[in-house]
Formats: sequence, structure tokens, C-alpha cells
Amino acid sequence: MKKVAIGIDIGGTNTAIGVVDKEGNVMVKDNIATPSKDDIDQYISDLSDAIKGIIKSVKLLNEDIEILGIGIGAPNANYYKGTIEKAANLAFKGIVPFVELLKKNFRELPTVVMTNDANAAAIGEMIYGGAKGMKNFAMFTLGTGVGSGLVVNGEMVYGHDGFAGECGHTMLVADGRVCGCGAHGHLEAYCSAPGMKRTAFELLAYYNATDSPLANKSYNELDSKMIYEAAVAGDKIALEVFEITGEYLGQGLADTVHHLSPEAIFLFGGPTAAGDFIFNPTKEAMEEHLLPIFKNKIKILPSKLKPGDAAIVGASALVWKELE
Amino acid sequence: MKKVAIGIDIGGTNTAIGVVDKEGNVMVKDNIATPSKDDIDQYISDLSDAIKGIIKSVKLLNEDIEILGIGIGAPNANYYKGTIEKAANLAFKGIVPFVELLKKNFRELPTVVMTNDANAAAIGEMIYGGAKGMKNFAMFTLGTGVGSGLVVNGEMVYGHDGFAGECGHTMLVADGRVCGCGAHGHLEAYCSAPGMKRTAFELLAYYNATDSPLANKSYNELDSKMIYEAAVAGDKIALEVFEITGEYLGQGLADTVHHLSPEAIFLFGGPTAAGDFIFNPTKEAMEEHLLPIFKNKIKILPSKLKPGDAAIVGASALVWKELE
Repeated sequence: MKKVAIGIDIGGTNTAIGVVDKEGNVMVKDNIATPSKDDIDQYISDLSDAIKGIIKSVKLLNEDIEILGIGIGAPNANYYKGTIEKAANLAFKGIVPFVELLKKNFRELPTVVMTNDANAAAIGEMIYGGAKGMKNFAMFTLGTGVGSGLVVNGEMVYGHDGFAGECGHTMLVADGRVCGCGAHGHLEAYCSAPGMKRTAFELLAYYNATDSPLANKSYNELDSKMIYEAAVAGDKIALEVFEITGEYLGQGLADTVHHLSPEAIFLFGGPTAAGDFIFNPTKEAMEEHLLPIFKNKIKILPSKLKPGDAAIVGASALVWKELE
Repeated sequence: MKKVAIGIDIGGTNTAIGVVDKEGNVMVKDNIATPSKDDIDQYISDLSDAIKGIIKSVKLLNEDIEILGIGIGAPNANYYKGTIEKAANLAFKGIVPFVELLKKNFRELPTVVMTNDANAAAIGEMIYGGAKGMKNFAMFTLGTGVGSGLVVNGEMVYGHDGFAGECGHTMLVADGRVCGCGAHGHLEAYCSAPGMKRTAFELLAYYNATDSPLANKSYNELDSKMIYEAAVAGDKIALEVFEITGEYLGQGLADTVHHLSPEAIFLFGGPTAAGDFIFNPTKEAMEEHLLPIFKNKIKILPSKLKPGDAAIVGASALVWKELE
């Protein structure tokens, strides 16, 4: 009997659902829209139908299958309570008892568990990826924002309230850039994909760099992939964007090391596809900021989760972790 | 039979030894000099004699006693290896296998365990103090430096190498004050007792405050107790020192919350005797820097460990924690 877990990733506009085996392979997947209206009962009903649909289709592939549970990654998800609480990017207001509602439709599955997407990614890395066997590591996900998941003594750090691991909101620059959360100078405002764009625009303005290819893009057009392509082509502005992003990220990672001394820090997400452009300055800056006792000890590694499936796979890993 | 643990605190000049009961009461204590020469064998011999001496004297007090083990707090102590590694303030060079050496003289005691003093203080708080029953909390010790001990999921955070919890060396100010470690802008350079003195001297210079009582003290004379006394007497410079120290500390604590979301953060050490002078601005600044999801949730509390005995008591707590 092949054991599998269901992973669900709830994003702002799209909800992805997949059936994942113990090796992290997605056997079947599906999508439904995340509603833009605050109708949680309808959403739970639609989601349950979609889950039942893929369970049916995976059973058609292989009759001898056992489904161990459902893992869910969602913004502002509370691991302890199974709730989604005041998520700014979702239509649902207040505190939604998500796990409780979903469980009603899956009474045969004892394990239904949720956390935020960065924590799910960290557990995915631990169960399926590069962190197998590691007891102390951190995961930073660079995308629209910067998420993080922390693992200490082999266990996820949820904190006293279920919300720990918000390293994107540690402060790097006093009175610095406005962050998505409204505060100033947070890591996310510098090291997310939009943070890189902000750096690019600051540099264009600073150098009056009319000859950079980035100077031909509007603020709303430019994205981190264009910056990467310009860097590959040798554009000085784009190269400096990566240097600066890495300097800020390395400074932030050093603070995480001073807290937790992890064996490794994994980086995941769009900007990390730039490889050495981002990893080298990040590593250099982190080392520069570390106490001697931590120098040349902490690895910075690319995530081994496949970009397309990582969110589903990470969410499904919650189930395996729960059953350990 | 009354169960007790031995606590040893190794400081730069003095080594304190005590026998501590399960309630955290020090039954007997003694002191020997921490040597200024790198002769570890002599020190282990002297320390062993002193330990045997207090064991003898406590047995005279109460025949029905069982000694469970020895806990040691020391600078740069590695919990996993039982070593003291390259401690700047001790005479011993390189890596000293301290636990192994001491165990040779106490073969009847299976539990001999060591960590740094701030971690020992955190475990002391958990076993005997205000953190009883808490699974997630942090301890900051403000003194000559700033130490920290972090507890996650009920376990001490030692990290992959045994050295985690160096929050005094997280960076608050880019290119800020020189820290004892040689880097710039670390929390310790602002929030330790000497950090407060540095703030006082900056303020004296900024305001040209000839009428402050602090203006009559040399840099080497001034200490944090004098600043406290001046604040009590209403001196504006001294009051502003506490405001600024609290602002920096609160900013640093917010970074710790964004990592770990602890139930409480305990403050210990000389400067915390100033009570509201330091707790109020610290609390205010921390709240200001927190994500909404963490606001008005995290307690900042004074340590319940008695200042005089805290180091011995904290070290002894390692034994109880180990035997849990």
C-alpha cells in the first residue's frame, strides 16, 4: 500500500491541491480559485469537492493507496489552532477556523494540519529536500515578500502563539524603506523581488543611468527576472542590485545565526534563480557580520524543492512531519 | 532523601560553587580564583577540591542528601562537547575539554554538563524562576556584555554547534558603535552597562551638559548605578540614557520576537534594577517595532532569579533540566 499526503497551498488568487508521495513527487494536482468574496462555507465546499476529485483520480491510477492526511499552507495560518487569522491578502475577515471546517468533510482523515507557506516550505525541505537529517536550519523564501521558517532541535519553531518565523520583518535600516507591513527598514523591503526593483530604481536615479536597459522600463513593468537578465548581460546597475540585495540579506541572515546558529540556511524563490549573483554577496555579507565563533560554519544553500510544486509539496510535508 | 545539584559559575576572575536544592535555594557556597595563567590541570584540581569541600560541608548539614550532578556556566562553553572554546576572558587557550577533565574526579556523578552563563540563566529561570511552565521564552542578561538564552518548544536553543543565543551581537545600527567583539552597531554596544555609560557620554557632549551630576565623573569612574541614581534624582541626561537604552533594547527584542514569538522575554542584570526607567521605554519600543500580529502579546518581565546567586543557581538548573 503506497502512502500519500495531500498538500494544499492557499494563495491570494489561486488554491493549488496535490497528492504527494513520500519522496515528494506530485502524483496528481488541481487548482481552484481562492475566492475574492468572504464566503468561507462556499470555499470549503468547493475545496472539499476538488480534494475528493483528486483523491478519486489518484485512486484510479493506483488502487492500493492510503491517504494519511491533509497539509495546508496559507497566509497567517496558526498551526496550534488551525485558523487563518486576519490575512491581509485573503477575503476572509477575522479568524477562520479553517481546519475544523475542512475536517467536517473528511472525518476519515485524522490528520488535517496547517501553517503559513514559509513554514510549510521549511518542513518540505526537511522531509523531501536538502535539509533531510538536519536538526537546526532556517528557510528564507524570497518572493513578493520574504517569508521564513525556522527549525530548532528537529522541530518547527511556531512560538507561543503559532506565528513565529517572521524574519522578513526584522529591521535592517533605521527609518529605512516602507515595508508592506507599514513599518520602516524591514528585510522584506530590501530582499524581496519588489525590494530588488526598488533598489534598481534608486540606483538608476543615483547614477542617472540612462544607458542601462533597466532605464527603459516603468516601475510597474520592471521585475526581478529582468534585473537578472540585465545582470547576465553585464549591466552595471543590475549587477549592483544583486550586490546590494545580498549585502542586506547577509546582514539579516547573520542576525538569524546569532539567534539560532543553524547548520544551514536555505534560500527559495524567484530571486534565488540568479545563483551566484545573489548567493555570493549574501554569503560574503553574512560572514562579515558574524561573530568569529560562527564564521565559515553556516552553509547558505539553494532549496532543493522544485519551484513549481514547492508550495503543494511543502504543505503535504506537514502531514509526514505530524506523523513522525 | 533530599536531592540537590551543584552549580558552578566560571567568571573571568572568580569561580563560584554552590549546592542548590530543587527550589533553587543555595544551601552552601564557596569561591576560588579563576586562574590568570593557562594551567588547566591545576585549575581542575583546585576546583575539584573545592567541590569536594562543599559536598562534605552540605553532608554535615543533612546526612540524607543525594547529589544528582554538576552544572557549569562558563564563557564560550559548548553544551554538546562540554568544552570551553577560545574564551577571550579566560586564560585557557584553544579548546579545553572541561567536562571530560572534571568528570575524571567525579566518576560517581553521571551528569556533568556545561553551557554559557546566559543559557544557564535561562534554564535557571525555567526551573526555579518566572518561566516555570513556559515552553517558549527568551532571557536577556544585561551586564558587562549582553547575553541571551532562548527556549523553544520547552528546549534550550543550542544550535547546530552548541553556541546559539548570541543576541547581544545582532546589529542595530549600521556602522554604529564599536562592539567588544570588534564589529559595529551591535545591541551589546548600546544596551550593556558600559553601553549605557557610552550613551551618557555622548549625551553630555551633545548637550554640553555641565550641570548634570554625571559631568563630574570620568569615563572610567562612571557606572550604570550612578546613572540610575542620577535618574532617580531627576537628572535629564540620566533619564534620557534610560530612554535611549530602552529604545535600542526594544528594537532588538522585536527582532527576537519576529524570529521566535516567545511568550515572555526576561531581563536580568544590573541595569534592570532600574525598573520602570528601563522596562517602560523597552516595552514601548518593542511594541512599536512589532508586526500587528505580535502586538500586546509578548511580556517583558524582570527575572525572578536572585542577583547574588543567579549564576550558581542557573548553572545548577542545567542538572535538573538534563534529568527531566
